[in-house]
Amino acid sequence: MGVPTRMDVWTLGSPGELRRAQKPVPSPGRGEVLVRIEAVAICATDLEIIANGPPALINGRLPFEQDFTPGHEYMGAVAALGPGVDEYAVGDRVAVEIHAGCGQCRRCRSGMYTSCLNYGRNYGDVDKGHRANGFTTDGGFAQYAVNHVNTLVRVPDAMGDEEATLAVTAGTSMYGLTELGGLVAGESVVVIGPGPIGLLAVGVAKALGASPVVLVGTRENRLDIGSRLGADVVLNGREVDAVARIRELTGVGADYVLDCAGTEASINDAIHMCSRGGRICLAAFPHGRTNVDLEHAVVNNMYLYGIRGEGKSAVRRAMALMAARRFDASLIHTHTFDMDDLPEAIRYARDRVDDAIKVVVRPRH
Amino acid sequence: MGVPTRMDVWTLGSPGELRRAQKPVPSPGRGEVLVRIEAVAICATDLEIIANGPPALINGRLPFEQDFTPGHEYMGAVAALGPGVDEYAVGDRVAVEIHAGCGQCRRCRSGMYTSCLNYGRNYGDVDKGHRANGFTTDGGFAQYAVNHVNTLVRVPDAMGDEEATLAVTAGTSMYGLTELGGLVAGESVVVIGPGPIGLLAVGVAKALGASPVVLVGTRENRLDIGSRLGADVVLNGREVDAVARIRELTGVGADYVLDCAGTEASINDAIHMCSRGGRICLAAFPHGRTNVDLEHAVVNNMYLYGIRGEGKSAVRRAMALMAARRFDASLIHTHTFDMDDLPEAIRYARDRVDDAIKVVVRPRH
Amino acid sequence: MGVPTRMDVWTLGSPGELRRAQKPVPSPGRGEVLVRIEAVAICATDLEIIANGPPALINGRLPFEQDFTPGHEYMGAVAALGPGVDEYAVGDRVAVEIHAGCGQCRRCRSGMYTSCLNYGRNYGDVDKGHRANGFTTDGGFAQYAVNHVNTLVRVPDAMGDEEATLAVTAGTSMYGLTELGGLVAGESVVVIGPGPIGLLAVGVAKALGASPVVLVGTRENRLDIGSRLGADVVLNGREVDAVARIRELTGVGADYVLDCAGTEASINDAIHMCSRGGRICLAAFPHGRTNVDLEHAVVNNMYLYGIRGEGKSAVRRAMALMAARRFDASLIHTHTFDMDDLPEAIRYARDRVDDAIKVVVRPRH
Amino acid sequence: MGVPTRMDVWTLGSPGELRRAQKPVPSPGRGEVLVRIEAVAICATDLEIIANGPPALINGRLPFEQDFTPGHEYMGAVAALGPGVDEYAVGDRVAVEIHAGCGQCRRCRSGMYTSCLNYGRNYGDVDKGHRANGFTTDGGFAQYAVNHVNTLVRVPDAMGDEEATLAVTAGTSMYGLTELGGLVAGESVVVIGPGPIGLLAVGVAKALGASPVVLVGTRENRLDIGSRLGADVVLNGREVDAVARIRELTGVGADYVLDCAGTEASINDAIHMCSRGGRICLAAFPHGRTNVDLEHAVVNNMYLYGIRGEGKSAVRRAMALMAARRFDASLIHTHTFDMDDLPEAIRYARDRVDDAIKVVVRPRH
Repeated sequence: MGVPTRMDVWTLGSPGELRRAQKPVPSPGRGEVLVRIEAVAICATDLEIIANGPPALINGRLPFEQDFTPGHEYMGAVAALGPGVDEYAVGDRVAVEIHAGCGQCRRCRSGMYTSCLNYGRNYGDVDKGHRANGFTTDGGFAQYAVNHVNTLVRVPDAMGDEEATLAVTAGTSMYGLTELGGLVAGESVVVIGPGPIGLLAVGVAKALGASPVVLVGTRENRLDIGSRLGADVVLNGREVDAVARIRELTGVGADYVLDCAGTEASINDAIHMCSRGGRICLAAFPHGRTNVDLEHAVVNNMYLYGIRGEGKSAVRRAMALMAARRFDASLIHTHTFDMDDLPEAIRYARDRVDDAIKVVVRPRH
Repeated sequence: MGVPTRMDVWTLGSPGELRRAQKPVPSPGRGEVLVRIEAVAICATDLEIIANGPPALINGRLPFEQDFTPGHEYMGAVAALGPGVDEYAVGDRVAVEIHAGCGQCRRCRSGMYTSCLNYGRNYGDVDKGHRANGFTTDGGFAQYAVNHVNTLVRVPDAMGDEEATLAVTAGTSMYGLTELGGLVAGESVVVIGPGPIGLLAVGVAKALGASPVVLVGTRENRLDIGSRLGADVVLNGREVDAVARIRELTGVGADYVLDCAGTEASINDAIHMCSRGGRICLAAFPHGRTNVDLEHAVVNNMYLYGIRGEGKSAVRRAMALMAARRFDASLIHTHTFDMDDLPEAIRYARDRVDDAIKVVVRPRH
Repeated sequence: MGVPTRMDVWTLGSPGELRRAQKPVPSPGRGEVLVRIEAVAICATDLEIIANGPPALINGRLPFEQDFTPGHEYMGAVAALGPGVDEYAVGDRVAVEIHAGCGQCRRCRSGMYTSCLNYGRNYGDVDKGHRANGFTTDGGFAQYAVNHVNTLVRVPDAMGDEEATLAVTAGTSMYGLTELGGLVAGESVVVIGPGPIGLLAVGVAKALGASPVVLVGTRENRLDIGSRLGADVVLNGREVDAVARIRELTGVGADYVLDCAGTEASINDAIHMCSRGGRICLAAFPHGRTNVDLEHAVVNNMYLYGIRGEGKSAVRRAMALMAARRFDASLIHTHTFDMDDLPEAIRYARDRVDDAIKVVVRPRH
Repeated sequence: MGVPTRMDVWTLGSPGELRRAQKPVPSPGRGEVLVRIEAVAICATDLEIIANGPPALINGRLPFEQDFTPGHEYMGAVAALGPGVDEYAVGDRVAVEIHAGCGQCRRCRSGMYTSCLNYGRNYGDVDKGHRANGFTTDGGFAQYAVNHVNTLVRVPDAMGDEEATLAVTAGTSMYGLTELGGLVAGESVVVIGPGPIGLLAVGVAKALGASPVVLVGTRENRLDIGSRLGADVVLNGREVDAVARIRELTGVGADYVLDCAGTEASINDAIHMCSRGGRICLAAFPHGRTNVDLEHAVVNNMYLYGIRGEGKSAVRRAMALMAARRFDASLIHTHTFDMDDLPEAIRYARDRVDDAIKVVVRPRH
C-alpha cells in the first residue's frame, strides 16, 4: 500500500466554516500508526466543534484558522507503523477511539486515559503526548490520520466500513454500562434519549443480558430502531409519563438509568425513575447549570456517573459484541456521502434530513 | 443486669413536640438484642425528624401522635439477647448504626442494606423486617432499645460513652470515603462543611493517609477543630476563594471532594474544585432542586456519590480507627445533658448555643 | 394448589444408601416458601454426598441415618408462602440456588452468602438460620421442599422444567466469571473440563462476549457440545498440547482460565496457559493436596479464585441469559427419569451411561 | 547540580560475580529523568539476581557478562529531566519503584503495569519501552540511573535517605493489601514471615486500621520489630501452633493472610488459618511446585493473589503513610555501607550477619 506525500483534508476556518485543503501526510511517531481512512461517521460533537471549536487549545492557541482537521469516528487500514509497534501490520483494518492519554499522570496510570490530567498538552516545550483525535490533534476528515496504537481496535473481516465507524459510539455506551457496574444481566436498564449513544446503549445492555431494557424517547422512528436493537419496552415520553410507567414496570424503580439526552427534564426523570441504591449514567453533555433534584438522589443513595466519551478499553469490548453480532449497530447508520460532500453530509446530520441518524463520509483514494 | 418491665422515653407528639412518656421495655426478636442505653448524641436529622417527622411512615401511618421515639446515635450495654444471637453477651458495650435491612431484597443481598428496597416496611401483613432506629422503629431517646445484631459494633473498654455515640457519624464519613474508592493514601481530599460528618471525614481521611486533606468552612472554631483532627489546610470560604485556592494547591484539582454542607454553592464548589476524573461524595442532604454545573461534571468525567448515612459496615471500620486512636472523635463532643433535659439539649444543638457541635444526653437508670 | 400433609422422599441411610421414605410436608418459616418440586438434576456433588455424606453436620450430628434428604438442583412451583414473603405468589415457577446465608455474619453482610461464617448452623440453641439445600437442610429428592426466598429465581414461561434445573449450574459458571472480573467481552477465556459447569461456562462466557472462548477436554462428544454452546476453539488434551496451543493462539497466554476439572494436571495447565496478570478460577474441588506451580503464578502476578458453587446472585444473572436464549443450556440435559427410579438415574449420572451429562428426575404428584 | 560524564558502577560478571566498573552516565529519554543515587537497599531478589541472573534477557541475551548493573531499591535526587517531564525539578529527592510498563499492552492500559505483557522488551527492532530497574535495565548499584517518571515518588524533606529506600518494599506490602481488598480497618490480618515485606506489611496493615494484626515468624528479634511496627500479636511458629492459635483468636479464621515466606508450609498454613471467604496474598516467590491444600481453599471460597512486587501506584500510597509517620519503616534498616563495600554489604544481607535485615549502600559523589 503506497502512501502519498500529500493528502486532501477538510480544515476548520473561522467558526462554522470548513475548508478543503491539502496537507502533508503525517508520519507516525513512537507507538503510533498511520491510518488510511476509509469511512468517518459524523458525531453531534463534530457539529459542535465546527460551530464553536473544540474544547481545548490547538497548539496552545484558539482552534480556529490553524488548519485543524476535525472528525473522530473513523476507520480504515493501517498504512504505516511507527517505532515500537508490532501489534498491527500494514493493511490491517482498524477502527479508532478518540483518546490516547499521556501515560504519565495519575489518571492514565490507573487506566483512566480519557480523564488524562494532561488533556490537550501535545505541543510546546513540555509536550505530554496527549492526543484526542479531532479534538486536540488532527482528526478524520482527511485521507490519512496518525493514531496512537492504544486507540485502535481491529475490524472483523465481515464487518462493513460504515458499521465499523460506530465502534466508538458503542464503546461510549459500553463504558457507561461498565462504570455503572457492568453486571447488568437480569437487571433493569432504562435509556433516555434515542440518539446514537442511547440506541447503541440499548443494544449493549441487551447483549449483556439486562432485562428489561426500556428506551424512552419522543420520535417514533427512533423508538422503532430501539426495539430492533433489543429494547423490551419503548416509551414515547410525549404520550406517557415515563417515570410513572417505569416505577410501575419495575415496582421499585430502575436499577440503572442512562441519560443520553442531557436536558434538565431528562436528568430529573432519570433521578426519579431510579431505584433506591440505583445508579445513573450521565452520558450526554448538559448545557451549563441544571436544576436537578439532588435531594432525591442523595436521600436514596444514588450514584451519578458523568462520562466523557469512551474509556477503559470499552471500545474494544463493544467491538467484540458487534463482531459477534449481538446487536446490529448498522441500524443507526442511515446515510453515506463522499467526503467531498462533507458540508452536505453535515447538513443531513445536523438537520436530521430524511430521518438521518448516523451519516458517514468516505474519502476517495 | 436486671431489666425492668417499663422504661422512660421521649415520644414524638405533634410536629415539633417531644413528650415524656413511659413504655414497656421491648423484647428482642430473632437476631436482635436489647440495648440498655447509656448515651445518645443528637444529630441534625433528629431535629428534622422532631420538627417534620421521619421520612417514612410509622406502622403505615403518619409518624406523629403514635408514641414514636426518635434518636439514633446511641450506645450502651447489651441487656438481653434474642434467639439466634451469640455474637454478643449480656453486658457487652456496644454502639449502634441506624439501618438493618430486610435481608431479602436485591440491595440487601448485595450488601447495600442502607438502600434496602423495603425501607420502612416493618409492620402490617407482610412485615419485611426493615428497621431504621429512630426513623422507622423506636430509637434511642429512651432507657432501652431493641436493635438488630447487624447494627451493633463493640465499644472498646478505654472509650468513653460520649465518644462511642459518634461511631455512626464517623461511619458515615467512612462510608463516603469508601464509596469514593477507599484507597485515599497520598491523594488529595477536600471536605466542605465542618459539621460533625465533615469534621470526622477529616479525621478518617487523614487516618487513611490522604494528603493533603483540606477543610473548607466559615466558622473559625470549627476549622480549628478540623486542624486538630488532622486537616493539612483549612480554608475559610468567607475569606478566600476556596475553589481557586484548591486548584492552586493541587495543580489539577482535588482527587476527592466530600460535600458535607448540602447547599447549591457547596455542591458547585465541589464540582469546580474537583479534578478531571475525580470523585465527589454528596454526604449532606440538599433541599429540593439544586442548580448545579453538571456540564462541568460530565465533561470532566466526574462521578457523584449521594450517600444516605452509613453503609457497608463502615461503622465497624470507623470504630476500628477510633479504637486505635487514629483521630480524636471526642473533639466534636461539646456538651452532655441528662436525658430528662432533652429539650434543652436540643436547643443547644439546634441553635449552636455555646458553639455546640455534638450534644449528648444520658438517661438515668 | 392443594398441599398434602405427607410426601414421598428419598433419604440418606448409611453411606451410599438411599431409601424411599415418607415425611410430613414442611411448613415455610419467615422469609421462606414451600416449593412443589417438578424436576431435580443430579449433580456430581450429590453422588459424593450420597457416598460420603455432606460436608457439614446435620442437626449437629453425622449426616447418616437421620432421614436427611439430599438433592439441590431443583425447580418447581411455589406452593405456600411463609410470613414476610410477597416477592412470589403461589403457582409461580421457580428454580433454586443452594445457599441461604445467616444474614448476620461479616460475609453475609457484604453479599458473600455462600461463604457464610455460620455455615451449617441451623439447629440447636443458637440456630443461625443458615441453609444449604441438600447439604445441611433437606433437599430436592422429594415432592416438596422449603426454601428461603433468597434462593429463588423465576423460571420464564417458555422454559422447560429440565432446563430450569440447570440454573444453579449456569449460576456457578456465572459466579466464576463474575469473580474473575466479569468484563470479559473481547478477552480470551479458556475452560478446562467439559463437565456441566465447564460446558455452561462456555455458554456464559460467549454470551458475555468473550473471544476467543477455548474449551479443553478429552471426550469428543462433550467437546462437540461445547462447540454448540459457542466455543470458538475446542482442544482435545489427549491429542494436542493444550498449553502450547493456547499460548500460540493468544500470543501472551489467556486472560482468564476456568479450571472445571480439579486435577493437579488441569490446575497446572491453567497456570501455565494463563497470561501475566491473568486470572484463574478454580471451579472444581481438587482432592486434598495438589502439587502446583505456584512460583509461576506468583512471578506472573496471577490471581486464583477458588469458588464454592454459586454466589452473589449469579444464578439470577445466569437465568437472565438463559431466558434470553443466549445459550442453550438444555444441550447438557441428556436423560430424564421418574424420581421413583432415582437409583437408576444416579447410575446413569455416575457411570455416564449412554454419554449422560445431566440426568434429571421428576417426582409424581 | 553538575552531572559528570562517567560514573562508577557495579556490574554483573559471571554468575555470582560483581565487578567494579565505569560507564557513561546515561541520558534520560522521553518521560524519563536521571537520578543521582544517594542510597540503595539490598533486596533478597538482588542476591538471587547476582547468583542466578535476572529472570529476563538483557538486550535479548543471557544476562551475564553484559556490563549489566543490578540494584532496584534506590533513592536520590533528580539530576536531569528528559523531554516531556515537568512533574519533577532538578534537585527533587525521589525514591523509585521498579517497573515502568510499555503503556501499550492490555495490562498497562488497565493500570497493571507490573504485569506488562511486554516485560523485558526494551531492545531490538521493536523496543516496547518496558523497564524494570535492575532486572531488565541498569539499576541502582551505580552513581546515577535513568528512570521513567512513572517510577518516581517524592521523598519528604524530613525523611532520611535510608528510610526512603524502603518505599518500594512498603509499596509491595501495600499492593498486596490493596489487592486483597484494601478496606482492612477492623478486619483481621495475619502476616507470615517477618522479612522486610512481611514486617512492613504489619506496619501498613496497622496503619490502615486492621485489627488484630498477627505476625507469625520464628526469629524473636524480628517478631520484636513486628511488635514495634504495630503487630497486636506475634506468634513464634516454633513454639506454638500458629494455625490453631489464629483460629482460636479469630473464631472463624483470619479475614486476610499475607504469606511473605513462600514455603510449602507457610502457604498451607495461610490456607488453613484463613476464614471461609477470606483472601490470601502470596507475596513471596515459592520455589517450583508446591504441594498445597487447594481443596480447602476451593471448598471455602478463598481467593489467592500472587503478587509480583509493587503495583498500581502502591508505592506512592505507602510513601504517603511513611511520610505521615504511621509506621516507622526505618526499624527494618539495620546497616549502612559505602557502595564501594557492596560485596561486604551483600554478605551481611545474605548471611544475616549481626541480625541484618535491610542493608543499605551509599555511593560516593
